[in-house]
Amino acid sequence: MTPMRTPLIAAATLAVSLTAATSSQAADVDKAIEYRQDALGVMAWQIGPLSDMAQGKIEFDAEAFTRRAENLAAVAPLPWEGFVEGSLQGDGHGVETDALSAIADDREDFESRQQALIEESATLAELAQGDDVTAMRRQVAAVANTCKGCHDNYKAE
Amino acid sequence: MTPMRTPLIAAATLAVSLTAATSSQAADVDKAIEYRQDALGVMAWQIGPLSDMAQGKIEFDAEAFTRRAENLAAVAPLPWEGFVEGSLQGDGHGVETDALSAIADDREDFESRQQALIEESATLAELAQGDDVTAMRRQVAAVANTCKGCHDNYKAE
Repeated sequence: MTPMRTPLIAAATLAVSLTAATSSQAADVDKAIEYRQDALGVMAWQIGPLSDMAQGKIEFDAEAFTRRAENLAAVAPLPWEGFVEGSLQGDGHGVETDALSAIADDREDFESRQQALIEESATLAELAQGDDVTAMRRQVAAVANTCKGCHDNYKAE
Repeated sequence: MTPMRTPLIAAATLAVSLTAATSSQAADVDKAIEYRQDALGVMAWQIGPLSDMAQGKIEFDAEAFTRRAENLAAVAPLPWEGFVEGSLQGDGHGVETDALSAIADDREDFESRQQALIEESATLAELAQGDDVTAMRRQVAAVANTCKGCHDNYKAE
Protein backbone atom coordinates (compact mmCIF):
# COMPACT_ATOMS: atom_id res chain seq x y z
CA MET A 1 0.00 0.00 0.00
CA THR A 2 1.47 3.40 -0.96
CA PRO A 3 1.18 6.43 1.29
CA MET A 4 -0.91 8.05 -1.47
CA ARG A 5 -3.58 5.40 -1.45
CA THR A 6 -4.23 5.40 2.25
CA PRO A 7 -6.18 8.67 2.36
CA LEU A 8 -8.24 7.57 -0.67
CA ILE A 9 -9.12 4.30 0.99
CA ALA A 10 -9.89 6.12 4.21
CA ALA A 11 -12.12 8.56 2.33
CA ALA A 12 -13.90 5.74 0.55
CA THR A 13 -14.42 3.92 3.83
CA LEU A 14 -15.75 7.10 5.38
CA ALA A 15 -18.13 7.62 2.45
CA VAL A 16 -19.44 4.09 2.78
CA SER A 17 -19.93 4.41 6.51
CA LEU A 18 -21.69 7.76 6.09
CA THR A 19 -24.05 6.20 3.56
CA ALA A 20 -24.67 3.31 5.93
CA ALA A 21 -25.32 5.71 8.78
CA THR A 22 -27.84 7.70 6.73
CA SER A 23 -29.68 4.62 5.55
CA SER A 24 -29.65 3.18 9.07
CA GLN A 25 -31.06 6.48 10.39
CA ALA A 26 -33.85 6.29 7.79
CA ALA A 27 -34.61 2.74 8.93
CA ASP A 28 -34.63 3.99 12.52
CA VAL A 29 -37.20 6.67 11.64
CA ASP A 30 -39.42 4.08 9.95
CA LYS A 31 -39.17 1.82 13.00
CA ALA A 32 -39.98 4.71 15.32
CA ILE A 33 -43.11 5.53 13.26
CA GLU A 34 -44.20 1.90 13.36
CA TYR A 35 -43.53 1.74 17.07
CA ARG A 36 -45.67 4.77 17.90
CA GLN A 37 -48.44 3.44 15.66
CA ASP A 38 -48.28 0.14 17.55
CA ALA A 39 -48.39 1.88 20.92
CA LEU A 40 -51.26 4.15 19.86
CA GLY A 41 -53.07 1.05 18.53
CA VAL A 42 -52.72 -0.63 21.93
CA MET A 43 -54.09 2.52 23.60
CA ALA A 44 -57.06 2.58 21.21
CA TRP A 45 -57.79 -1.08 21.94
CA GLN A 46 -57.79 -0.45 25.69
CA ILE A 47 -59.87 2.72 25.55
CA GLY A 48 -62.51 1.22 23.25
CA PRO A 49 -64.35 -0.84 25.91
CA LEU A 50 -63.78 1.90 28.53
CA SER A 51 -65.55 4.34 26.27
CA ASP A 52 -68.31 1.83 25.45
CA MET A 53 -68.87 1.18 29.17
CA ALA A 54 -68.80 4.89 30.01
CA GLN A 55 -71.42 5.58 27.35
CA GLY A 56 -73.56 2.59 28.28
CA LYS A 57 -73.03 0.93 24.90
CA ILE A 58 -71.93 -2.21 26.70
CA GLU A 59 -72.63 -3.30 30.24
CA PHE A 60 -70.42 -1.83 32.95
CA ASP A 61 -68.02 -4.51 34.22
CA ALA A 62 -66.01 -3.26 37.19
CA GLU A 63 -63.24 -5.86 36.81
CA ALA A 64 -62.80 -5.19 33.08
CA PHE A 65 -63.02 -1.44 33.61
CA THR A 66 -60.26 -1.48 36.23
CA ARG A 67 -58.01 -3.74 34.19
CA ARG A 68 -58.38 -1.62 31.04
CA ALA A 69 -57.90 1.62 32.96
CA GLU A 70 -54.66 0.23 34.41
CA ASN A 71 -53.52 -0.96 30.99
CA LEU A 72 -54.29 2.44 29.50
CA ALA A 73 -52.35 4.25 32.22
CA ALA A 74 -49.40 1.91 31.68
CA VAL A 75 -49.36 2.47 27.92
CA ALA A 76 -50.14 6.21 27.87
CA PRO A 77 -46.50 7.28 28.41
CA LEU A 78 -45.14 5.01 25.68
CA PRO A 79 -46.00 6.23 22.17
CA TRP A 80 -44.31 9.62 22.35
CA GLU A 81 -40.66 8.61 22.02
CA GLY A 82 -41.66 7.41 18.55
CA PHE A 83 -42.11 10.99 17.33
CA VAL A 84 -38.45 11.31 16.45
CA GLU A 85 -36.85 13.97 14.27
CA GLY A 86 -37.81 13.51 10.62
CA SER A 87 -40.84 11.29 11.26
CA LEU A 88 -43.72 13.65 10.40
CA GLN A 89 -45.70 14.00 7.18
CA GLY A 90 -43.54 15.49 4.45
CA ASP A 91 -40.30 14.40 6.08
CA GLY A 92 -39.71 11.79 3.37
CA HIS A 93 -39.48 8.55 5.36
CA GLY A 94 -40.45 5.12 4.12
CA VAL A 95 -43.57 4.56 6.23
CA GLU A 96 -46.88 6.37 5.91
CA THR A 97 -47.96 8.47 8.85
CA ASP A 98 -50.92 10.65 9.83
CA ALA A 99 -48.67 12.80 12.03
CA LEU A 100 -48.90 16.33 10.64
CA SER A 101 -45.86 18.53 10.24
CA ALA A 102 -47.67 20.97 12.59
CA ILE A 103 -46.17 18.92 15.43
CA ALA A 104 -42.74 20.36 14.57
CA ASP A 105 -44.19 23.89 14.67
CA ASP A 106 -45.28 23.56 18.29
CA ARG A 107 -43.44 20.75 20.04
CA GLU A 108 -44.18 22.35 23.39
CA ASP A 109 -47.95 22.18 22.88
CA PHE A 110 -47.66 18.61 21.54
CA GLU A 111 -45.69 17.57 24.61
CA SER A 112 -48.07 19.26 27.04
CA ARG A 113 -50.91 17.33 25.40
CA GLN A 114 -48.99 14.07 25.87
CA GLN A 115 -48.53 14.96 29.52
CA ALA A 116 -52.25 15.73 29.87
CA LEU A 117 -53.14 12.31 28.46
CA ILE A 118 -50.70 10.56 30.79
CA GLU A 119 -52.16 12.40 33.79
CA GLU A 120 -55.82 11.94 32.84
CA SER A 121 -55.17 8.22 32.28
CA ALA A 122 -53.45 7.92 35.67
CA THR A 123 -56.43 9.64 37.28
CA LEU A 124 -58.77 7.19 35.55
CA ALA A 125 -56.76 4.23 36.86
CA GLU A 126 -56.95 5.68 40.37
CA LEU A 127 -60.70 6.27 40.15
CA ALA A 128 -61.13 2.71 38.84
CA GLN A 129 -59.81 1.46 42.19
CA GLY A 130 -62.85 2.98 43.87
CA ASP A 131 -66.58 2.62 43.28
CA ASP A 132 -67.71 6.01 42.03
CA VAL A 133 -68.93 4.88 38.61
CA THR A 134 -70.17 8.35 37.69
CA ALA A 135 -66.70 9.78 38.31
CA MET A 136 -65.14 6.94 36.29
CA ARG A 137 -67.48 7.64 33.37
CA ARG A 138 -66.71 11.36 33.50
CA GLN A 139 -63.00 10.62 33.59
CA VAL A 140 -63.19 8.40 30.50
CA ALA A 141 -64.62 11.44 28.72
CA ALA A 142 -61.71 13.54 30.01
CA VAL A 143 -59.23 10.99 28.62
CA ALA A 144 -61.07 10.80 25.30
CA ASN A 145 -61.02 14.59 25.05
CA THR A 146 -57.24 14.67 25.38
CA CYS A 147 -57.02 12.11 22.55
CA LYS A 148 -59.40 14.14 20.41
CA GLY A 149 -57.73 17.47 21.13
CA CYS A 150 -54.39 16.15 19.93
CA HIS A 151 -55.88 14.40 16.88
CA ASP A 152 -57.77 17.56 15.87
CA ASN A 153 -54.53 19.52 15.86
CA TYR A 154 -51.89 17.06 14.80
CA LYS A 155 -53.41 14.05 13.03
CA ALA A 156 -54.41 13.91 9.35
CA GLU A 157 -58.00 12.79 8.78
CA MET B 1 -99.59 -6.68 7.17
CA THR B 2 -101.13 -10.19 7.11
CA PRO B 3 -100.48 -12.71 9.86
CA MET B 4 -98.80 -14.90 7.20
CA ARG B 5 -96.19 -12.31 6.28
CA THR B 6 -95.00 -11.55 9.76
CA PRO B 7 -92.96 -14.74 10.30
CA LEU B 8 -91.38 -14.31 6.85
CA ILE B 9 -90.33 -10.78 7.64
CA ALA B 10 -89.07 -11.89 11.03
CA ALA B 11 -87.08 -14.68 9.38
CA ALA B 12 -85.65 -12.28 6.83
CA THR B 13 -84.69 -9.84 9.59
CA LEU B 14 -83.08 -12.64 11.54
CA ALA B 15 -81.11 -13.75 8.47
CA VAL B 16 -79.85 -10.22 7.92
CA SER B 17 -78.84 -9.79 11.52
CA LEU B 18 -77.07 -13.17 11.54
CA THR B 19 -75.10 -12.14 8.45
CA ALA B 20 -74.24 -8.85 10.12
CA ALA B 21 -73.14 -10.68 13.26
CA THR B 22 -70.89 -13.00 11.27
CA SER B 23 -69.28 -10.16 9.35
CA SER B 24 -68.87 -8.14 12.53
CA GLN B 25 -67.25 -11.16 14.21
CA ALA B 26 -64.82 -11.43 11.28
CA ALA B 27 -63.96 -7.74 11.70
CA ASP B 28 -63.45 -8.37 15.41
CA VAL B 29 -60.99 -11.19 14.68
CA ASP B 30 -59.04 -8.95 12.32
CA LYS B 31 -58.91 -6.20 14.94
CA ALA B 32 -57.77 -8.67 17.60
CA ILE B 33 -54.93 -9.85 15.33
CA GLU B 34 -53.87 -6.27 14.67
CA TYR B 35 -54.07 -5.47 18.37
CA ARG B 36 -51.82 -8.34 19.41
CA GLN B 37 -49.36 -7.45 16.63
CA ASP B 38 -49.31 -3.87 17.96
CA ALA B 39 -48.76 -5.03 21.54
CA LEU B 40 -46.01 -7.46 20.51
CA GLY B 41 -44.43 -4.66 18.46
CA VAL B 42 -44.36 -2.44 21.54
CA MET B 43 -42.74 -5.27 23.52
CA ALA B 44 -40.11 -5.76 20.81
CA TRP B 45 -39.32 -2.04 20.82
CA GLN B 46 -38.83 -2.03 24.59
CA ILE B 47 -36.77 -5.20 24.72
CA GLY B 48 -34.47 -4.13 21.88
CA PRO B 49 -32.32 -1.68 23.88
CA LEU B 50 -32.50 -3.92 26.99
CA SER B 51 -31.03 -6.73 24.95
CA ASP B 52 -28.42 -4.44 23.38
CA MET B 53 -27.40 -3.18 26.83
CA ALA B 54 -27.32 -6.68 28.28
CA GLN B 55 -25.05 -7.85 25.47
CA GLY B 56 -22.85 -4.77 25.60
CA LYS B 57 -23.82 -3.69 22.08
CA ILE B 58 -24.73 -0.30 23.47
CA GLU B 59 -23.57 1.37 26.67
CA PHE B 60 -25.41 0.40 29.83
CA ASP B 61 -27.65 3.29 30.92
CA ALA B 62 -29.25 2.59 34.29
CA GLU B 63 -32.08 5.10 33.84
CA ALA B 64 -32.99 3.83 30.37
CA PHE B 65 -32.66 0.22 31.50
CA THR B 66 -35.04 0.73 34.41
CA ARG B 67 -37.59 2.63 32.32
CA ARG B 68 -37.59 0.03 29.54
CA ALA B 69 -37.78 -2.85 32.02
CA GLU B 70 -40.82 -1.21 33.62
CA ASN B 71 -42.42 -0.59 30.23
CA LEU B 72 -41.79 -4.19 29.26
CA ALA B 73 -43.34 -5.50 32.47
CA ALA B 74 -46.37 -3.25 31.92
CA VAL B 75 -46.88 -4.44 28.34
CA ALA B 76 -46.07 -8.15 28.83
CA PRO B 77 -49.60 -9.08 30.00
CA LEU B 78 -51.33 -7.28 27.12
CA PRO B 79 -50.91 -9.09 23.79
CA TRP B 80 -52.55 -12.35 24.76
CA GLU B 81 -56.19 -11.40 24.72
CA GLY B 82 -55.68 -10.80 20.99
CA PHE B 83 -55.33 -14.55 20.36
CA VAL B 84 -59.08 -14.97 20.00
CA GLU B 85 -60.91 -17.94 18.52
CA GLY B 86 -60.44 -18.11 14.76
CA SER B 87 -57.37 -15.85 14.64
CA LEU B 88 -54.59 -18.34 13.82
CA GLN B 89 -53.03 -19.26 10.48
CA GLY B 90 -55.51 -21.16 8.33
CA ASP B 91 -58.53 -19.76 10.15
CA GLY B 92 -59.50 -17.65 7.12
CA HIS B 93 -59.50 -14.13 8.56
CA GLY B 94 -58.75 -10.93 6.65
CA VAL B 95 -55.38 -10.09 8.22
CA GLU B 96 -52.11 -11.96 7.80
CA THR B 97 -50.65 -13.55 10.88
CA ASP B 98 -47.56 -15.55 11.84
CA ALA B 99 -49.49 -17.29 14.62
CA LEU B 100 -49.37 -21.00 13.85
CA SER B 101 -52.43 -23.20 14.23
CA ALA B 102 -50.32 -25.23 16.69
CA ILE B 103 -51.47 -22.72 19.32
CA ALA B 104 -54.95 -24.24 19.16
CA ASP B 105 -53.46 -27.71 19.67
CA ASP B 106 -51.94 -26.80 23.01
CA ARG B 107 -53.56 -23.71 24.48
CA GLU B 108 -52.38 -24.74 27.93
CA ASP B 109 -48.73 -24.69 26.91
CA PHE B 110 -49.22 -21.41 25.05
CA GLU B 111 -50.77 -19.83 28.12
CA SER B 112 -48.10 -21.12 30.47
CA ARG B 113 -45.50 -19.54 28.19
CA GLN B 114 -47.38 -16.22 28.34
CA GLN B 115 -47.36 -16.47 32.11
CA ALA B 116 -43.61 -17.21 32.11
CA LEU B 117 -42.95 -14.09 30.03
CA ILE B 118 -45.08 -11.95 32.34
CA GLU B 119 -43.23 -13.27 35.40
CA GLU B 120 -39.74 -13.02 33.91
CA SER B 121 -40.50 -9.43 32.83
CA ALA B 122 -41.77 -8.55 36.30
CA THR B 123 -38.57 -10.01 37.79
CA LEU B 124 -36.51 -7.91 35.38
CA ALA B 125 -38.37 -4.74 36.42
CA GLU B 126 -37.71 -5.59 40.08
CA LEU B 127 -34.01 -6.24 39.47
CA ALA B 128 -33.81 -2.97 37.54
CA GLN B 129 -34.69 -1.15 40.77
CA GLY B 130 -31.45 -2.42 42.29
CA ASP B 131 -27.85 -2.19 41.16
CA ASP B 132 -26.85 -5.76 40.36
CA VAL B 133 -26.10 -5.22 36.69
CA THR B 134 -24.95 -8.82 36.21
CA ALA B 135 -28.29 -10.08 37.50
CA MET B 136 -30.12 -7.62 35.24
CA ARG B 137 -28.16 -8.80 32.21
CA ARG B 138 -28.84 -12.43 33.07
CA GLN B 139 -32.53 -11.67 33.50
CA VAL B 140 -32.77 -10.00 30.08
CA ALA B 141 -31.55 -13.31 28.67
CA ALA B 142 -34.25 -15.12 30.65
CA VAL B 143 -36.92 -12.84 29.19
CA ALA B 144 -35.52 -13.22 25.67
CA ASN B 145 -35.55 -16.99 26.09
CA THR B 146 -39.26 -16.99 26.90
CA CYS B 147 -39.88 -14.93 23.74
CA LYS B 148 -37.76 -17.32 21.71
CA GLY B 149 -39.30 -20.45 23.15
CA CYS B 150 -42.77 -19.32 22.18
CA HIS B 151 -41.69 -18.13 18.73
CA ASP B 152 -39.92 -21.43 18.05
CA ASN B 153 -43.10 -23.33 18.77
CA TYR B 154 -45.88 -21.05 17.65
CA LYS B 155 -44.63 -18.42 15.21
CA ALA B 156 -44.10 -18.89 11.47
CA GLU B 157 -40.62 -17.92 10.26
